[in-house]
Amino acid sequence: MSSTGEAPRKNRGPAAAAENRQALIDAARDLFAEQGFSVPFSAIARRAGVGQASLYRHFPDKVAIGVAVFEENLRLLEARPVGLHDFLVSIADQAKVSASLLEALVTSRSPLAEDLAVRLSAIITDMIARDDLPPGTTVDDVQAAVSMVAFHTAAAPTPDAAERAIAIVERGLRAL
Amino acid sequence: MSSTGEAPRKNRGPAAAAENRQALIDAARDLFAEQGFSVPFSAIARRAGVGQASLYRHFPDKVAIGVAVFEENLRLLEARPVGLHDFLVSIADQAKVSASLLEALVTSRSPLAEDLAVRLSAIITDMIARDDLPPGTTVDDVQAAVSMVAFHTAAAPTPDAAERAIAIVERGLRAL
Repeated sequence: MSSTGEAPRKNRGPAAAAENRQALIDAARDLFAEQGFSVPFSAIARRAGVGQASLYRHFPDKVAIGVAVFEENLRLLEARPVGLHDFLVSIADQAKVSASLLEALVTSRSPLAEDLAVRLSAIITDMIARDDLPPGTTVDDVQAAVSMVAFHTAAAPTPDAAERAIAIVERGLRAL
Repeated sequence: MSSTGEAPRKNRGPAAAAENRQALIDAARDLFAEQGFSVPFSAIARRAGVGQASLYRHFPDKVAIGVAVFEENLRLLEARPVGLHDFLVSIADQAKVSASLLEALVTSRSPLAEDLAVRLSAIITDMIARDDLPPGTTVDDVQAAVSMVAFHTAAAPTPDAAERAIAIVERGLRAL
């Protein structure tokens, strides 16, 4: 990240813009995990070593950068498919950040959020086949499990709470 | 409820106060179910046929009357014990009203909310024994299931969403 420290001072074109955007997403991911979604928006630019103007050019608000963090998580799941258990753990990790970010993502009617929902549903379809879930398991079933784990973990963000919740819904889905 | 229509006009003592309080709780339950937790506080008094002054005498705010509605639900469960399935259905019905009421109840540090948590935990302990849940099922397990069903239903308050969620966690708990 320190290599981007100079970035806001001169316009180094599209490559620098992409670097700044990535530095902002990395900083947001760390800060949300450390301090929750209530961290001041401007703190993200400071942590990234990027100017405030650049922050606002890439992301109009905290929800937008939250969506970008979530989008990157989806991209990782698309690139390296995992089974039901690791999938739910990844959702719970993401949800620990904040109930308000989660609610913003779920209720957002933006095209970007709808695109993410479509990709999430494709990841789930793929996982149902790969992880040998019982015949008859639907995307809606897994989405309900995802939502339950996510909202519960957001409300009670302890490692123990997430593990317990995942164990229950995982048994529930496998016993279908 | 119509018998309490005259109540706010004269001070009929403790019996009238209890009647008004019950009429307010009944009206709040109906209005929350019909219109959600965002219904104006003053609408509750109008529906109950009780004066606004009486409303504020009994309940300082909407969360306080939400807690009272929830307390009455707990009282019904204490008086007429049910199995895991009906218990989860009752939680889901309650959660449909509003995510914000749910969050207010969960995060409230009031003595009343803590008392409700203790009573909920006693109801669960009793239900684990009565409903022959697998040996080793803990109150924490059932509380995690309750929280998952409640938050998911609050976020997606359709009958289908609640049923699907209940089926998953119920199988998960019974397969313990």
